[in-house]
Amino acid sequence: MTASHRRPVPLSRAYRLLNHGPTVLVSAAHDGQRNIMAAAWAMPLDFEPPKIAVVLDKSTWTRQLLEGTGTFVLNVPCVAQADIVQTVGSTSGQALDKFAAYGLQTFVGEVVDAPLLEGCVAWLECRLLPEPHTQQTYDLFLAEVVSAQADERVFSEGRWHFEGHDELRTLHHVAGGNFLSIGDPVAGKQLDV
Amino acid sequence: MTASHRRPVPLSRAYRLLNHGPTVLVSAAHDGQRNIMAAAWAMPLDFEPPKIAVVLDKSTWTRQLLEGTGTFVLNVPCVAQADIVQTVGSTSGQALDKFAAYGLQTFVGEVVDAPLLEGCVAWLECRLLPEPHTQQTYDLFLAEVVSAQADERVFSEGRWHFEGHDELRTLHHVAGGNFLSIGDPVAGKQLDV
Repeated sequence: MTASHRRPVPLSRAYRLLNHGPTVLVSAAHDGQRNIMAAAWAMPLDFEPPKIAVVLDKSTWTRQLLEGTGTFVLNVPCVAQADIVQTVGSTSGQALDKFAAYGLQTFVGEVVDAPLLEGCVAWLECRLLPEPHTQQTYDLFLAEVVSAQADERVFSEGRWHFEGHDELRTLHHVAGGNFLSIGDPVAGKQLDV
Repeated sequence: MTASHRRPVPLSRAYRLLNHGPTVLVSAAHDGQRNIMAAAWAMPLDFEPPKIAVVLDKSTWTRQLLEGTGTFVLNVPCVAQADIVQTVGSTSGQALDKFAAYGLQTFVGEVVDAPLLEGCVAWLECRLLPEPHTQQTYDLFLAEVVSAQADERVFSEGRWHFEGHDELRTLHHVAGGNFLSIGDPVAGKQLDV
């Protein structure tokens, strides 16, 4: 079970879950309804308290739910979930419950009401920082991360380590359901003047 | 020479240069001065006209230059440049010209004055969309992409294709000079209900 591999991530390290630019799944729940969608455009915005930025199109049902409740979750999916990411990224949840329709298992977060998707490798529970101009003009949503977890098999002590876990590598969207998985470590050394 | 591999990228496809979440180098020039710094927090913001978002700390010299001139460049570096990324990301350009100090070769952009760094795999020339509140409160800068180029060996017809070019793979920052290179293609299929 995935559950046994989930560990809390200190908020001071939460930015590292997004630092390398993975595609995320945004989940939200409001007034008895829930949804999940894919978003390639998400990034950290600050270290501590950790903040994030994510772009959510006006047409999305998830956006309506999170504007209603003021909270949401960024789930970081992995290679094993590529079909799920493509599917929830290309269907609308207003007419059907994607979780039920596609057999998606969820668990309950520490702070927010939005469902957390089983099988992901990291989860960031977020509280919206209301910025109506930015939201309306740019579809850009800013939020504070209020709780974070990760799969200890690939993230521990503030670092990703995917060696030996190719199915748990993060996904990075190119276009149209084509992703790149994250690759191998590269160390940068400071050059002398 | 890298120069011979540079090709224009249609603006409608420019977002794909950042879609997979690479670390970027931000360069700017103003009033006879120039600088370049690393930024892991950058992402697309819109398709067409293409827009981007990037976080720039108040302490950075590059931020002062781009606030002065209103334009800048996002350079997308590759594995072969890991030491350069680490170096320009951990030194200040206010006291020394990093380009001269570290022997960084540049070329002239199509539209903006900021220098473009040789050896990168993509370049997005950007014009600031002034949003003083967002800049001041969140260190978040929004911009329109006004010209884009990429190395045709790894990006053509709107797609990244890194096979056979491991040294040209993009870098994705973890922390403290430790990066992950981008990996292999993964296709996501739409699931049946």
